[in-house]
Amino acid sequence: MTKITQLQAVLKEQQVDAAFITTPDNVFYFTGFRSNPHERLLGVFIPAEGESFLICPKMEVPDASEVFDGKIIGHMDTENAWDLLVSQFTVPVAKLAIEKSHMTVERKEFLEERIQGVALSAIDDRVTEMRLIKTEVELVQLRKAAELADYAIEEGCRLIAEGKTEMDILTAVESAVKAKGAESMSFSTMVLSGPKTASPHGTPGNRKIQKGDFVLFDLGVVVGGYCSDITRTVAFGEPTPEQREIYETVRHAEETAVALVRPGVLAKELDAAARNVITEAGYGDFFTHRLGHGLGISVHEYPSVHGENDLALREGMVFTIEPGIYHPEITGVRIEDDVVVTKDGVEVLTKFTKDLIVL
Amino acid sequence: MTKITQLQAVLKEQQVDAAFITTPDNVFYFTGFRSNPHERLLGVFIPAEGESFLICPKMEVPDASEVFDGKIIGHMDTENAWDLLVSQFTVPVAKLAIEKSHMTVERKEFLEERIQGVALSAIDDRVTEMRLIKTEVELVQLRKAAELADYAIEEGCRLIAEGKTEMDILTAVESAVKAKGAESMSFSTMVLSGPKTASPHGTPGNRKIQKGDFVLFDLGVVVGGYCSDITRTVAFGEPTPEQREIYETVRHAEETAVALVRPGVLAKELDAAARNVITEAGYGDFFTHRLGHGLGISVHEYPSVHGENDLALREGMVFTIEPGIYHPEITGVRIEDDVVVTKDGVEVLTKFTKDLIVL
Repeated sequence: MTKITQLQAVLKEQQVDAAFITTPDNVFYFTGFRSNPHERLLGVFIPAEGESFLICPKMEVPDASEVFDGKIIGHMDTENAWDLLVSQFTVPVAKLAIEKSHMTVERKEFLEERIQGVALSAIDDRVTEMRLIKTEVELVQLRKAAELADYAIEEGCRLIAEGKTEMDILTAVESAVKAKGAESMSFSTMVLSGPKTASPHGTPGNRKIQKGDFVLFDLGVVVGGYCSDITRTVAFGEPTPEQREIYETVRHAEETAVALVRPGVLAKELDAAARNVITEAGYGDFFTHRLGHGLGISVHEYPSVHGENDLALREGMVFTIEPGIYHPEITGVRIEDDVVVTKDGVEVLTKFTKDLIVL
Repeated sequence: MTKITQLQAVLKEQQVDAAFITTPDNVFYFTGFRSNPHERLLGVFIPAEGESFLICPKMEVPDASEVFDGKIIGHMDTENAWDLLVSQFTVPVAKLAIEKSHMTVERKEFLEERIQGVALSAIDDRVTEMRLIKTEVELVQLRKAAELADYAIEEGCRLIAEGKTEMDILTAVESAVKAKGAESMSFSTMVLSGPKTASPHGTPGNRKIQKGDFVLFDLGVVVGGYCSDITRTVAFGEPTPEQREIYETVRHAEETAVALVRPGVLAKELDAAARNVITEAGYGDFFTHRLGHGLGISVHEYPSVHGENDLALREGMVFTIEPGIYHPEITGVRIEDDVVVTKDGVEVLTKFTKDLIVL
């Protein structure tokens, strides 16, 4: 059963006439066609019964037809893509499912103007649910992406030297993984040193690395359309006892959560387990974000692994586990792995060592 | 007058109580704080009168406070950011302006649930209009970004050699500009060779460059939050007469449009002028996209330079001019510059030569 057929079963169950899928990641999921349409219209029309089609900028039709063997409608910048879309509907549409978490208010109004009296409902959760459980074909790509992320950290460690800037290392690491086949980075690579490690979402710059710094790498690559996301923090020069204590606390928190992963455990239990370790060590106030996030076609997807999420883990879910302590006077440390829930436990996709590396 | 004060004047004129700005680029425009919040809430609340505030993930508060000196509200992953937002409103809100082209249907429903009977209106066009005309401060950044784009093309030409792959050159070019201070690339860099040049939005890969290829570079960098976007197509080995004819046709089309730029000319007149040159040369069917797009904080912003846009150019507008011919049997060629409308003509920001370079 293709993914489109699977969605059609959902549409029949929900008694809607069709879905119009516009999130680029979901368009990729259903058609294999990856595109960033910017402000242009990109979407897949999937009727409960009948022929689906992809609509995209005309200039992308050749690329789309290489991966998607269904019908493709190309629109020109000079024509109204929404008029064209509605004119191509392959079934009468009175009830249309859309992605409410992606479709803008403006686009919703475009549809309502063109489809008299249309009833719009949300299909987001059902697509999320499909994407939540990875197939073996998807896991193959995720493993490759994780392997390249490990390699990136290895390269990063090799490149650290007195006087090099964060940006020097960042660009060399990105070149190295792209040369090994990464399609792109999954997000803006982070190489942070010294006091900057204490900012969970800091920006790399021209700060020169010096002895006594911790260096934090947070990066990921895209392979076959699937993302990895890894964080490692290493020491340049002998760490102080306080720095070492923070490192070991984060590591213990991370490993505690990883060890808990198996079907039936709740997402919030993972967050609580890691947070307890950090709180008991006296650093609770310095762990200011959730434990992790789902990973797949998107670098941040469902499920969110935080203290209020009652979701029970199921085989095939993939997410990150990434506790951190951000101490403005001592150092910041984060350690992050990508994990898959297996039939009876966990597969850790990222395999780079979590022993404290002192360079 | 700050940008926030300017917007407040618009809100008073429209008789709305406040605006809630959520597009990351617009948040940067009003606050100087650049962030990719992924699915998390990021926004600026700007009342017609009274105190504005930024709301962002709690872990980003330290970074935000370095650039924005107004009030900042941080939200945790475990609390409901929308409840928090509404509880912090600094004025009573019955009429709220939102960005309909950015706010999702889901988020609109979150607001409506929490603000009984709120009337939502669109503020998009007014913010677009503010951003459309660049200040001198903004132009300084745009010039720097264009200068680095020129440098990237120079590097790219230097790197072309028999047997190198598109990705080899791409990664080396990106490293080079990042080492020179580019914050990031403005979009996925394109290095396409041989037959791949005929795909306007193709994907670079491991194809090895060989004699007789045209090589197309399309890239841009971000400096101080502002983007550049340049395309040059060069020949590796002596081009055939047909390739040369296509090149010179595109160049003539591009230069014809650039020469027309001055206040009062319509956007569509630029598109028509370039398209005429290409059509008269017999390649009209192979120029499948608009002439160009606005450029600034976003790499694609207002105005769209296409054949139906009646917008009259005004001093301070910045956009690309990028005609192309994509001939599947001969070659693809695109040439793109970034231009500013000046008081009485045009300033071309990208300065790399448009003479056909034969390597």
